[in-house]
Amino acid sequence: MGGPPAAVATVRRAVRRHLEEFPSGALILVACSGGADSLALAAATAFVAPRLGLRAGAMTVDHGLQEGSAQRAAALLPTLRRLGLDPVDLHTVRVGRAGGPEGAARRARYAALDSGAEAHGAESVLLGHTRDDQAETVLLRLARGSGARSLAGMSPCSGRYRRPLLDVDRSTVRNACAQMGLTAWEDPHNRDPAYARSRVRSQALPILEETLGPGVAAALARSADLLRDDAAALDDAAAQALDRCRHPGGGADLAVLAELPRAVRTRVLRQLAVAAGVPEGALGAVHIHALDRLVTHYRGQSHVDLPGRVCGRRRHGCLFVEHTDRSE
Amino acid sequence: MGGPPAAVATVRRAVRRHLEEFPSGALILVACSGGADSLALAAATAFVAPRLGLRAGAMTVDHGLQEGSAQRAAALLPTLRRLGLDPVDLHTVRVGRAGGPEGAARRARYAALDSGAEAHGAESVLLGHTRDDQAETVLLRLARGSGARSLAGMSPCSGRYRRPLLDVDRSTVRNACAQMGLTAWEDPHNRDPAYARSRVRSQALPILEETLGPGVAAALARSADLLRDDAAALDDAAAQALDRCRHPGGGADLAVLAELPRAVRTRVLRQLAVAAGVPEGALGAVHIHALDRLVTHYRGQSHVDLPGRVCGRRRHGCLFVEHTDRSE
Repeated sequence: MGGPPAAVATVRRAVRRHLEEFPSGALILVACSGGADSLALAAATAFVAPRLGLRAGAMTVDHGLQEGSAQRAAALLPTLRRLGLDPVDLHTVRVGRAGGPEGAARRARYAALDSGAEAHGAESVLLGHTRDDQAETVLLRLARGSGARSLAGMSPCSGRYRRPLLDVDRSTVRNACAQMGLTAWEDPHNRDPAYARSRVRSQALPILEETLGPGVAAALARSADLLRDDAAALDDAAAQALDRCRHPGGGADLAVLAELPRAVRTRVLRQLAVAAGVPEGALGAVHIHALDRLVTHYRGQSHVDLPGRVCGRRRHGCLFVEHTDRSE
Repeated sequence: MGGPPAAVATVRRAVRRHLEEFPSGALILVACSGGADSLALAAATAFVAPRLGLRAGAMTVDHGLQEGSAQRAAALLPTLRRLGLDPVDLHTVRVGRAGGPEGAARRARYAALDSGAEAHGAESVLLGHTRDDQAETVLLRLARGSGARSLAGMSPCSGRYRRPLLDVDRSTVRNACAQMGLTAWEDPHNRDPAYARSRVRSQALPILEETLGPGVAAALARSADLLRDDAAALDDAAAQALDRCRHPGGGADLAVLAELPRAVRTRVLRQLAVAAGVPEGALGAVHIHALDRLVTHYRGQSHVDLPGRVCGRRRHGCLFVEHTDRSE
């Protein structure tokens, strides 16, 4: 009969759906760690891209965090070249410490991928995240009490990045990898309980599947899809509302703000705070709530102090959110 | 020094915040199962209501599902009266089978509470759900891949119903119950692994707390609060959009629909389908998606079949969602 095994076909189809959008001749780069997910993605891209008139290459990043990582990364290059990918680049990065080990590694990795994509004039960079990665992300963020934007998880398209496998479950991707005869590297971090994500993967999701029934990972990913649409619509509404409430005198019109649905108003307040210089990471629900009370439950509060020496106050029927250097 | 223990004060404060909104002389009824949560709520309401010039009574529902439930319900009445509550009513209901055992019991219970509230002309009925109940609800719904409306969990105010303890954790409520010297009844269903909710309570949430760190229940409840605001804003936007897209000829203007953010459009499509007679329970994401493609990815599809003999089709620049009796 011929035709590839089912798992390989599924992965290729998922990749094709994303690649079809790119203009003929464009260069697509796969970010490949050597793990099963991104290796299957690399192989499927090497297969699909030329059939759509696209060029396909790959990048791998050595974070220098584990014994032997440089050798492993170097050994991956010939595998990627044998798949027909070209160019194939190795980026060696230095991971800092700010924002925790996972956050620091992520920042260093994306910086390397960005500069690699720019150096080659690549149209897009493909990432190997699967539906299970998405479910883990949603659970991790739920544990922080996040809103829709955060619970929406990873986006299938975000700037130059694409995640073609975000609707494919991990076991299918791993089967595809094996069926293509590729030997993947298993990152020991994925099983190290020191990492929250590996605890979610190895403990939390299995017990949820056991208590709530199979399909929890798929359900979490479906919720994320719906919430991503919601977040986009509300961000849109907030941007429009921000335009409407802008007062020539510089503040935001209190009467317009008060009329907004709370979900839109709190997003407007967040944008005002960030625009005034509050660091995004330092801006919590408690600050937004305090600003909101200045609008909707005003009882003579003189002002609201925000991180980054920003201050919110009412003046002449407007809300002013300003750096204290300006408001004094 | 005097003053009640901290847990009692917390519960009373939560109740007071809700009761302050009611006009003097109004009657408030507490729905009490005899469990620790609703018993603490009943006692706090009996204490707070007269101090705000309100009258407070209670209702208990015998579902007739467990051995000895009638005796237990009857024995609860004098306890409630001793707290100073008046009237105190016992409602005996028959639980059907439709929609699963939990759903059927819930429907019978709310029907009884509604008719009890109406018979007494009560202003409001208070329910004893805690923050932990909210977290369980969110997790259960996540496992189904739900959108914001569903993940938003239970509302603190919904029609005549109030949930004053929705921000208070279960252990505080249970402490308050013990500190007030009340003996609560422990429903064996709460520990019966046959029920999804009891599995979430006894297995899923503890393992999440263990893997993700303490505070998961509070975080889930916080996410629910944010998503509740989002759902309200988007439902609002959908209602307005529905007005704008209504065509005098009866359909919904395709050009207006296509311009809407997807999160708003899918809500409009859902409302059109329900208005045309699709049973809400039978309306799935797959149906909304098919209707959406009729609007945004039209490739000559003749029509979309929906449950309840409803059909969606394009005609004269409009989308018609109609019962097949009307559209033929």
